[in-house]
Amino acid sequence: MAFNRKDLLAIRDLSVEEINTILDTAAAFKEISRRPIKKVPTLRGRTVINLFFEPSTRTRTSFEIAAKRLSADAINISASSSSLSKGETLIDTARNLEAMVPDAIVIRHSSAGVPQQLARICRTSVINAGDGAHEHPTQALLDALTIREHKQKIEGLEVAIIGDIAHSRVARSNVHLLTKLGANVRVAGPATLIPPHFDQLTANSVGKITTTTSIDKALEGADVVLMLRIQLEREASAYFPSLREYAYFYGLTAKRLEMAKKDVIVIHPGPVNRGIEVASDVIDGPYSLVYEQVTNGVAIRMAALYLVMGGNVADAQQEVLGAK
Amino acid sequence: MAFNRKDLLAIRDLSVEEINTILDTAAAFKEISRRPIKKVPTLRGRTVINLFFEPSTRTRTSFEIAAKRLSADAINISASSSSLSKGETLIDTARNLEAMVPDAIVIRHSSAGVPQQLARICRTSVINAGDGAHEHPTQALLDALTIREHKQKIEGLEVAIIGDIAHSRVARSNVHLLTKLGANVRVAGPATLIPPHFDQLTANSVGKITTTTSIDKALEGADVVLMLRIQLEREASAYFPSLREYAYFYGLTAKRLEMAKKDVIVIHPGPVNRGIEVASDVIDGPYSLVYEQVTNGVAIRMAALYLVMGGNVADAQQEVLGAK
Amino acid sequence: MAFNRKDLLAIRDLSVEEINTILDTAAAFKEISRRPIKKVPTLRGRTVINLFFEPSTRTRTSFEIAAKRLSADAINISASSSSLSKGETLIDTARNLEAMVPDAIVIRHSSAGVPQQLARICRTSVINAGDGAHEHPTQALLDALTIREHKQKIEGLEVAIIGDIAHSRVARSNVHLLTKLGANVRVAGPATLIPPHFDQLTANSVGKITTTTSIDKALEGADVVLMLRIQLEREASAYFPSLREYAYFYGLTAKRLEMAKKDVIVIHPGPVNRGIEVASDVIDGPYSLVYEQVTNGVAIRMAALYLVMGGNVADAQQEVLGAK
Repeated sequence: MAFNRKDLLAIRDLSVEEINTILDTAAAFKEISRRPIKKVPTLRGRTVINLFFEPSTRTRTSFEIAAKRLSADAINISASSSSLSKGETLIDTARNLEAMVPDAIVIRHSSAGVPQQLARICRTSVINAGDGAHEHPTQALLDALTIREHKQKIEGLEVAIIGDIAHSRVARSNVHLLTKLGANVRVAGPATLIPPHFDQLTANSVGKITTTTSIDKALEGADVVLMLRIQLEREASAYFPSLREYAYFYGLTAKRLEMAKKDVIVIHPGPVNRGIEVASDVIDGPYSLVYEQVTNGVAIRMAALYLVMGGNVADAQQEVLGAK
Repeated sequence: MAFNRKDLLAIRDLSVEEINTILDTAAAFKEISRRPIKKVPTLRGRTVINLFFEPSTRTRTSFEIAAKRLSADAINISASSSSLSKGETLIDTARNLEAMVPDAIVIRHSSAGVPQQLARICRTSVINAGDGAHEHPTQALLDALTIREHKQKIEGLEVAIIGDIAHSRVARSNVHLLTKLGANVRVAGPATLIPPHFDQLTANSVGKITTTTSIDKALEGADVVLMLRIQLEREASAYFPSLREYAYFYGLTAKRLEMAKKDVIVIHPGPVNRGIEVASDVIDGPYSLVYEQVTNGVAIRMAALYLVMGGNVADAQQEVLGAK
Repeated sequence: MAFNRKDLLAIRDLSVEEINTILDTAAAFKEISRRPIKKVPTLRGRTVINLFFEPSTRTRTSFEIAAKRLSADAINISASSSSLSKGETLIDTARNLEAMVPDAIVIRHSSAGVPQQLARICRTSVINAGDGAHEHPTQALLDALTIREHKQKIEGLEVAIIGDIAHSRVARSNVHLLTKLGANVRVAGPATLIPPHFDQLTANSVGKITTTTSIDKALEGADVVLMLRIQLEREASAYFPSLREYAYFYGLTAKRLEMAKKDVIVIHPGPVNRGIEVASDVIDGPYSLVYEQVTNGVAIRMAALYLVMGGNVADAQQEVLGAK
């Protein structure tokens, strides 16, 4: 099935079919990273610009590796320094980059909605690599790929998402994706960090959202636990008395994890604050899939780049076979 | 026709034939960026070092994309941080880079003459990507390509260059190029920002230079208007009472533009300070070619890299055909 | 001969045979950089991550060029900014990078032992690009290649290493390599900058180490002089009264160099502090090989990347021939 969008901006916009198309394409591309020669000529002669207004070594690296494994040229622009714009508006920056005829712009920005604005004014494909507290679609997709690989389905799963829900684009994208695909999501965190009416975020979806301030209630019988990062470098800690108290009430320990299903899996968007939101023995333990998530991240970004440039699942599977 | 120079340092050094060779080569290469597969193998196995002592995301990106579309390897060195030299002299830095056997070094530096010095001591080809207030040859060449595409000639055109002439390498390179090719240049700006005797800059050229402090006189009957950027991040504003006054006396508005020819074109090296040197409706209006300039910038840099490494126009045209 | 190590961490670990394998492979690869098309497909589809926790433009550039000339994809991560880890442990950073399935991680870090720690926890090959004051193996290897090219051997040579021995990973790696290969090393510097018992560093090696505070004694009859850099940006100057006094007592001048053998060669890891550890006329004079060292650096790093990924000398020689 083809992916008929120019851009990948938000999970909220996507149909179940579109989400499955991305997951299936990523599953096909994943095999490339297991070969000695980790490269197919699929996107040769295409130009991908990584435009990062917030520093993010790991997401930028993941997109850069994804582009290069498909033989695209990757250009990194770090705009956290003020050198980019020199007072230029974002729209002018975008139009100038577009005039160099790239095939895709991957953008991260601290303000919600910037990728959408870019996509509206550019003919170039735009991929949202995280915008403010809004969405981070490739993160939710790599989480879904990881869950699907281990549970063979997403429909009907009970997923606990625990931590700073209010400031988390990862939470928002995951809630949209998981409920669209029929999982039920239990959202837990301090009352100050759960937005009001959050359980009505995805009113038309198959899966249901429930909110609670009790991590124990969220964990009980869960198939999947997604722990969110406390963003120490931001102002998150203004919303609870101390990190120690947060860790005590909301940190995932091996003991607490016993309340979940026997075959529970634990995921985390990284980087992990060991001993704060997750205990070290959980991250390093048998239920944790944090490194599989990173591996799947490269595959999802390969799929995203490929599909927004006009590719489709069947061709992706052929590309993978052909280049063997 | 071949380009028998090792380096591209200053428009001042170039003959009319050499300028036309670069423009013709760029015109041939421009087509590559319009293809789905924007890449030819022309410079495969060549190494291009982008050595930027001043931050410049757009010029660096333009050269990087140009190198990659010709299949060269591009290495970026940002020397605005002090990590490069650790007290090393510029000459030692250059000799060390040369010992890694690159094929071209693209250099931007805040001091006039640095690329020339580098070119003297290196066998490697050197391309000046802007040196102090001296020259920015690839900018003038992309401006000329843009003018030529729209006016089918440069000879006999009346070109107004308006703004901070004194600190502008763009103005200097353009004045040399345009008068060599037979255009007449009217230079306008505050008296404090026009160097004395500027009208004698290109004594032997075909085209003439006139200077004025009146933007209206410069615009009257002009075929081309080149608006210069007020460099807010530098000390430019020390030369006039206020930005508001500058905008009032020297800003290009739609009203003022009516004094120019009916088919006038407006160019600007970017980034634009909207509402200061140019009104937003002019930049976004029908006469503005600012995005075509950026597209042509990639083509000019492809041509520059190709020619300093020994290429010639006829082969470039063949390369473009052969890779279709 | 194959190189049966996953990693290149320290000269101290290597056998004479392994050192010679690297030098022979580099000698074969060196030819590639002399061609118009400086690229062989040897490592196509391999991913090399340059992970630099200390800024180092020249070493990073050397590894990046080496990777690209072998057709590998190079990903640069500069972790001197705090954006990488966001409080993450080094081990987590390493495991995350490994999950993106690179083929080699080149790491520089200000703490001794970090590359070893990384190599222990990663299946990915790790190359030490300098760890604290411990080792800088590719620097010693490029020095050895340079010496071997000019002296046709290393065994039996008298090598003077002069300067800040205590803080120098270059000194340490060179002492190990040179004494393993049978050279005798005279180490000279201020008493405050020679670690106690340094002459017993390589007890089982063929070559001998002697230490002295007299540069003249070290130079007398020397075949090779390796001058170390005074690291002005670190605290080195706390160990002697003034730079002027250091230059007077330990700076290499043309006059002093007359004490060495007639065919002495002078090497320096760069960047050079002219007039401090070496006089300008020595660096620019007939005995200096500082630029050949840089050229050999690219060849050694090509060999290192190739060998840790499973290559061997005979195949390297074939690769070089095949791609002609």
